[in-house]
Amino acid sequence: MQTSDRQEVIDDLLSKVDQDAPETIQEIEQAHGVDSLALLLEALPVNDRVGFWEQLSPSLQLPVLAEMRDDAGEAVIRAVDEAQLHTLFADLDADTLLELQDVLTEPLLEEALGRMDSEQKQRYASAQQYADNQVGHWCDHQPLVVPAKTKVNVVLRLLRRVMPKYCDHVFVVDSRGIWVGAVPIHKLFGADGVLKISELVREQFPSLNARDDIYTSADTVASSEEIALPVLDDGNMLIGRLDLGTAYEMQAERAEAQIMATAGLDEDEDLFSPVMKSARNRALWLGVNLMTAFLASWFIGLFEATLQQVVALAVLMPVVASMGGIAGSQTLTLIVRGLALGQISKANLKPLLSKEFKVGLLNGVLWALVIGAIAGYWFESWGLGAVIGAAIVANIISAALAGIFVPVLLEKLKIDPALSGSVILTTVTDIVGFVAFLGLGTLFLL
Amino acid sequence: MQTSDRQEVIDDLLSKVDQDAPETIQEIEQAHGVDSLALLLEALPVNDRVGFWEQLSPSLQLPVLAEMRDDAGEAVIRAVDEAQLHTLFADLDADTLLELQDVLTEPLLEEALGRMDSEQKQRYASAQQYADNQVGHWCDHQPLVVPAKTKVNVVLRLLRRVMPKYCDHVFVVDSRGIWVGAVPIHKLFGADGVLKISELVREQFPSLNARDDIYTSADTVASSEEIALPVLDDGNMLIGRLDLGTAYEMQAERAEAQIMATAGLDEDEDLFSPVMKSARNRALWLGVNLMTAFLASWFIGLFEATLQQVVALAVLMPVVASMGGIAGSQTLTLIVRGLALGQISKANLKPLLSKEFKVGLLNGVLWALVIGAIAGYWFESWGLGAVIGAAIVANIISAALAGIFVPVLLEKLKIDPALSGSVILTTVTDIVGFVAFLGLGTLFLL
Repeated sequence: MQTSDRQEVIDDLLSKVDQDAPETIQEIEQAHGVDSLALLLEALPVNDRVGFWEQLSPSLQLPVLAEMRDDAGEAVIRAVDEAQLHTLFADLDADTLLELQDVLTEPLLEEALGRMDSEQKQRYASAQQYADNQVGHWCDHQPLVVPAKTKVNVVLRLLRRVMPKYCDHVFVVDSRGIWVGAVPIHKLFGADGVLKISELVREQFPSLNARDDIYTSADTVASSEEIALPVLDDGNMLIGRLDLGTAYEMQAERAEAQIMATAGLDEDEDLFSPVMKSARNRALWLGVNLMTAFLASWFIGLFEATLQQVVALAVLMPVVASMGGIAGSQTLTLIVRGLALGQISKANLKPLLSKEFKVGLLNGVLWALVIGAIAGYWFESWGLGAVIGAAIVANIISAALAGIFVPVLLEKLKIDPALSGSVILTTVTDIVGFVAFLGLGTLFLL
Repeated sequence: MQTSDRQEVIDDLLSKVDQDAPETIQEIEQAHGVDSLALLLEALPVNDRVGFWEQLSPSLQLPVLAEMRDDAGEAVIRAVDEAQLHTLFADLDADTLLELQDVLTEPLLEEALGRMDSEQKQRYASAQQYADNQVGHWCDHQPLVVPAKTKVNVVLRLLRRVMPKYCDHVFVVDSRGIWVGAVPIHKLFGADGVLKISELVREQFPSLNARDDIYTSADTVASSEEIALPVLDDGNMLIGRLDLGTAYEMQAERAEAQIMATAGLDEDEDLFSPVMKSARNRALWLGVNLMTAFLASWFIGLFEATLQQVVALAVLMPVVASMGGIAGSQTLTLIVRGLALGQISKANLKPLLSKEFKVGLLNGVLWALVIGAIAGYWFESWGLGAVIGAAIVANIISAALAGIFVPVLLEKLKIDPALSGSVILTTVTDIVGFVAFLGLGTLFLL
């Protein structure tokens, strides 16, 4: 649905929420899928969110809760009556509990587990063997599977009754549950009914290992051009499947996490998280950045005497810092993308450095002339113009080189360059910029 | 495939590229899909890239070229012999030409068009009726379609022969090509062979309008839980279909574009684009940021006399600016996500402002105490500590409010807040920070 429709529903809901109008809720339920209902709930302040959630039909309450981002769902769980949750747990399945487990309290999780039947409990336990960045944790643990000896006729009867979503192959396992292969459904048309299904298995069908990274697995599914891939454990036992729909959600989550990370935020951050919690979450990032800012200040402090005599240097400091920061972040962004795509290697690092150096030199000289001229005219000092020009050239070139070295080194140290690259880079460009500018000023303007 | 494997192949290729080793290329072709080959080519400096591309089997050359990001593909096209391209155009289809059209020169495009048969030409012309942000442009223009009167037997015979990828429904149109509906393939098992296919059509099946935005359409396909949706023109004529695999690619492209945009870059930017072109692309963003930096400088310049007397103010300026910028970008990032998801409306703006104000107040006071104490101790002036503390509180709170107002206003003005939000926000926080800090300094420290 269009985002503008959602905004209208939010306005509508917030204006009516006090009136307790069940017919409105029913209309909204009919017009919106679970995804969209979850987005709507996230957009409401916590009290309204809980009120709306309580009015949803019981069959929707758990799925919508499982779909919401963790922090937003947690706010609902904390606010509603525990008894109400207990009644919902009656028809909980393993996959929903996996989605909810991070937001349930320990006693609620125990309660929910106790209520599940043994089959679901076993699926849950099997998923728990894998970390939550592994595909074994998040794949669909109840795929449609037939034993290798099954006759084609039996499979056809089964498919006439049930047809899971995202399915154009039948997955086949042997009597021990070991992966045998996949049969394209269209091969069943006109096939001999008494044939064993295993005789129609496609020769090559890609698969995922349960320990594979979830985001890499999503990309593997997409590039395989299959609708879903089997997920196997180390002994080739089929433990589930990852379909392209789930892969799409995973990719969206990764993109969101990456953008939120640039501001030091978690992708689960709730629009209406409690003030104390939100302030605490953000304080850490502010603290990290404060240290780098004080470091830059300390370098400026080395030139206190110069600043006192040539106050124009203080006025122009933000220009030097800003140009270095922007030029550096351009190179950094390009390199971080290349690293994520596996495109940066030892062998192409040298030509990349040479290219970025030349781009930096060109833009450095161009903007040095512009900024030097403006500064010289503004403060009626061509010496100052020359000093800031030289500082700009030095800062833009070193920013371009740091834009390559910082993320490549972070990657080597197994630190996510998308998260911490920009704060380290800015520290480098700030310090280089200030030292070059104030240092040259000390040498030539006093 | 794993990104580390790709890095190894790049190292390998760049070390062997001069040796002209066709057996290596063959091995790589066998191990990599078209997507991965395109990523490999993008990672090579232009000369090596052209050399490797020329050694690919002819049947892979066009598909790999079409898969590459525009700038990287353009570099190949510019470097290779036109005659070589001409021979490749022999078996060009409409969808490949659509991918290539932005990188082909006008004469090459004409040549390619001239070589296509009339059916493909018509498909190309039909796609061209839609802008390149519309799903009618990018959908698959050759979906498997059967006329409504077709007997089930005939459809079964067809499906036994061909089965397109990403397909679990047969699309049905009437004699004029108007959309009738979709038949789930499993309904064909055991269906009466002389039945007309139209009698098995599902009652409700979602569809896309050809003018719908491509990214919104990708989300619609994903949330529909169907593998592919039909794309209809305004008269309900079926013009193509959008499958989840293409939707996945579109989403990846959108995420990449959004991250590149934060540094003022295009998602088509080539790792090894020509130095002049790259420098020009980046100069614009540097220029925009320069203007905002000079604006900040101008505000600092108003306090020149103060800076001359209390040089510690100059030393500490980066701290004030940095804290405001970081706090503002945290709120901005949260709000930009909310806007993209349609979660920010008139009705929840007030509670959002109130929450962010309180978060800003808490973090403002916390960090004012920390920074005030450090600054007071460093410069042995508790007056200075009080001044910077007050400036920090003012700047963090105003940053939080600007973090909401700036993107909401940009969205109203139909300007992408993900692109320009952060540069405007930083300008606001810089100016508020400097004016508060230097203004309070002027009042209380002289």
